[in-house]
Amino acid sequence: MPRFKLTVEYDGTGLVGWQRQDNGPSVQAMLEAAAAALTGQATIMHAAGRTDAGVHASGQVAHFETGRDFRADTVRDALNFWLREQARLAGRDLAVTVLDAGRAADDFHARFSATGRHYLYRILDRRAPPVLDARRVWWVGRALDAEAMAEAAKLLVGRHDFTTFRAKECQAASPVKTLDRLDVLRVGAEIHIVAAARSFLHHQMRNFAGSLAQVGNGRWKSADLGAALDARDRARGGPTAPPQGLCLTGVDYDPDQESVR
Amino acid sequence: MPRFKLTVEYDGTGLVGWQRQDNGPSVQAMLEAAAAALTGQATIMHAAGRTDAGVHASGQVAHFETGRDFRADTVRDALNFWLREQARLAGRDLAVTVLDAGRAADDFHARFSATGRHYLYRILDRRAPPVLDARRVWWVGRALDAEAMAEAAKLLVGRHDFTTFRAKECQAASPVKTLDRLDVLRVGAEIHIVAAARSFLHHQMRNFAGSLAQVGNGRWKSADLGAALDARDRARGGPTAPPQGLCLTGVDYDPDQESVR
Repeated sequence: MPRFKLTVEYDGTGLVGWQRQDNGPSVQAMLEAAAAALTGQATIMHAAGRTDAGVHASGQVAHFETGRDFRADTVRDALNFWLREQARLAGRDLAVTVLDAGRAADDFHARFSATGRHYLYRILDRRAPPVLDARRVWWVGRALDAEAMAEAAKLLVGRHDFTTFRAKECQAASPVKTLDRLDVLRVGAEIHIVAAARSFLHHQMRNFAGSLAQVGNGRWKSADLGAALDARDRARGGPTAPPQGLCLTGVDYDPDQESVR
Repeated sequence: MPRFKLTVEYDGTGLVGWQRQDNGPSVQAMLEAAAAALTGQATIMHAAGRTDAGVHASGQVAHFETGRDFRADTVRDALNFWLREQARLAGRDLAVTVLDAGRAADDFHARFSATGRHYLYRILDRRAPPVLDARRVWWVGRALDAEAMAEAAKLLVGRHDFTTFRAKECQAASPVKTLDRLDVLRVGAEIHIVAAARSFLHHQMRNFAGSLAQVGNGRWKSADLGAALDARDRARGGPTAPPQGLCLTGVDYDPDQESVR
């Protein structure tokens, strides 16, 4: 059966997250409804990362199977047509859009084939509350020391037991992960935390952000972050930063598997 | 009387623009109400640029006079407190925030003292409709040639009669202005038009954007843009691009005048 890979952008505001749930609109349910409208079949969507309620994506990846073939551009345009129709009928702003669609290999799986995931966490550390990016940043009303955060973040890079930064509900088999990148950058009035790893634990990025903010506001030194990591104890980590600062920006795959002609 | 300079960010979505009007919420009315709450006096706000309905600002400048003195930080925080209260009572997202407040010279005027104004116009030229930045970009559903637009934009820089790019309702004394900068940059899936001048005509930026898009989509060559400029005839210009792509990013002043200790 033909399998399509989708690259998806969404605004998580007001959504229950990626995963279909009874208590509100999800990205998965919207995409599945759009795909069912195209294919005339009930459709299951699989995503690279099951983002939380309120978390955004500029480069989420999903896949689905269809009973018959379509041109990839037709898939993208038809799904976007139905997504816009759904939003219009619900009287909502468009929340989900398909940036790209392509035929994938028969064994391609958005989640299990992924070799890397990329996240951005944005902190606005100014006195004035946000307006233009209110739905996209964690507003911290005082200046944070981005350089101290960048220095401390280096302690988290590499292979570690990340139990300190893992939500209780996390279903990963192991808390040991290899973090490939955790950069902290000053970008105007914002601090950007840019991370990459093969996979992340539940709430790992938001717990990183909350803990790095403790370094940025001077409550913690770098060594305190190191001690928190070593403790392998969620209670020793910083608070979980709010979801709206987080965005899934991209997912990596083996090029041979992700697309076929 | 003490005079305060404010640097202001706002989301123009759903607002009637800077200027107070009977038909909807304006930035001016919100700031005046907040200032009146602080000072206990009716207050008039003056802005560097009277942005249209739907246009945003990340660096608008305004000033007002008060009967008594305040610490500048108190002005910023008190205005933001009232702006948030107003938004909360109206059940709206916060639309206006004061980034900075400072004591200005007695002869400082946000509009008449300005020596430069900076605008950004954002075009999203991809097939998929925008979600994350839907309120901040002009969505053009096909790829534009940013390099051709950049080349053509050079024709507009300098001192010209800009009648072709001036709204009928424009109240400026003369259509002759000096455009200091008009850069067109590819930024990911967006095209950014960055402009600077001492002052702009009504709709000038939106008419630039609409005309440059004609070059970007291949309907016009550079020479057509040049001919449109030379014609000094609004009917020869491109369409007026929509307001949500436009943002007033900053205003320049003589440093001696804009702040006092």
